[in-house]
Amino acid sequence: MSEQHTVTAFDEDINRLRGLVAEMGGRVETALEEAMDALVHQNLAKAKKVVLDDHKVDALEAEVEKLVVETIALRAPMADDLREVIAALKIVGVVERIGDYAKNIAKRVPKIGDHRTIEPISLLPAMAQIAGEMVADALNAFAARNAMLAEAVIERDAVVDSFYNSIFRTLVTYMVENPKTISECAHLLFVAKNIERIGDHATNVAEMVYYAATGNYLPERDRSATENE
Amino acid sequence: MSEQHTVTAFDEDINRLRGLVAEMGGRVETALEEAMDALVHQNLAKAKKVVLDDHKVDALEAEVEKLVVETIALRAPMADDLREVIAALKIVGVVERIGDYAKNIAKRVPKIGDHRTIEPISLLPAMAQIAGEMVADALNAFAARNAMLAEAVIERDAVVDSFYNSIFRTLVTYMVENPKTISECAHLLFVAKNIERIGDHATNVAEMVYYAATGNYLPERDRSATENE
Repeated sequence: MSEQHTVTAFDEDINRLRGLVAEMGGRVETALEEAMDALVHQNLAKAKKVVLDDHKVDALEAEVEKLVVETIALRAPMADDLREVIAALKIVGVVERIGDYAKNIAKRVPKIGDHRTIEPISLLPAMAQIAGEMVADALNAFAARNAMLAEAVIERDAVVDSFYNSIFRTLVTYMVENPKTISECAHLLFVAKNIERIGDHATNVAEMVYYAATGNYLPERDRSATENE
Repeated sequence: MSEQHTVTAFDEDINRLRGLVAEMGGRVETALEEAMDALVHQNLAKAKKVVLDDHKVDALEAEVEKLVVETIALRAPMADDLREVIAALKIVGVVERIGDYAKNIAKRVPKIGDHRTIEPISLLPAMAQIAGEMVADALNAFAARNAMLAEAVIERDAVVDSFYNSIFRTLVTYMVENPKTISECAHLLFVAKNIERIGDHATNVAEMVYYAATGNYLPERDRSATENE
């Protein structure tokens, strides 16, 4: 195997890998923005587009897996290189899930209807923007092998969690006072939960990037301390 | 690399891998059973144990990752062997998440309190049992490289989804009629969603097993058709 390994051939593979991961990341970031826009403006057509576009993310994940297996088989990368290839494989699995959460938000748009009277929803777009930035930064950290940027992503997850806790409480209070809106509010609770999970998954990606870049795991933390409501 | 590759050495690695995956699977199946038992019987001590035990699942995942990287580096497996090693890596990532869902259910136990008056909850244990069996069968399919068993797991996901949809509707109706229970019911909605996601993840594992065993992807299906509420 290793006889075939030449720096350039491997570098070409890893650059293609990085490009595919970045493309997947761009697609799920767009999906989240469009899903939230569709939710806030009750744009059913845009919501449907988000749902339909998700298969492109799945296709990119399959392409990465194929390339990872080929790279390992043909280049027999060692140490740091192997760790980075494996990290790419794990990261796209998480990015695919982030895309599913965005799709799930889009799927709820028709079920939520006109919610402009539901006041707690005003917090959701700001929460989604922070979660989206975490996804973007986690993938930038992977592209740049930047462990510090990865750590910064992990720290920001606490902000998304406090948004979530506050939205959970305000939505429940709102449901008690407006029982007619309970079904819509239940869907909004799940939207908030999906965004909170996107923050968790961006954190998972950042942890993988940190490991790939440094070879060390971050100090132990409860990965689902964030799943507090 | 390949000079070092001997069938026995690789087989030892792959058997250790299979054993670690099976151990992880056993732990998350137990976690789900104990979490549901804690929920149904309001057993806070058992719920806490589920939360505390989850770190063992995370440790097993890290052990599998280490072994996968070593196996690839030292044995340079090709074709089917490489596909199986990569599948083990992806599967433990999903199994770790299934453990997180079980832990998340356990974390909600103290928040739900005595819910024995909340009638829709009676469906949750049956739903959880099916999801747990799906996880067990998906991992048995991996251990046995049994593509047919994997397909059977995927088909069963529809049952979990109809449980979920029925629980969602009955809980929302219950909340409308009993606004005092809205907070508990919101947590129960998330418990139902966690179980539904466990079914989805068992399905993802089954899809990976099918691919590892056959080298083919299953006919295209919407992986989150299941995220319908």
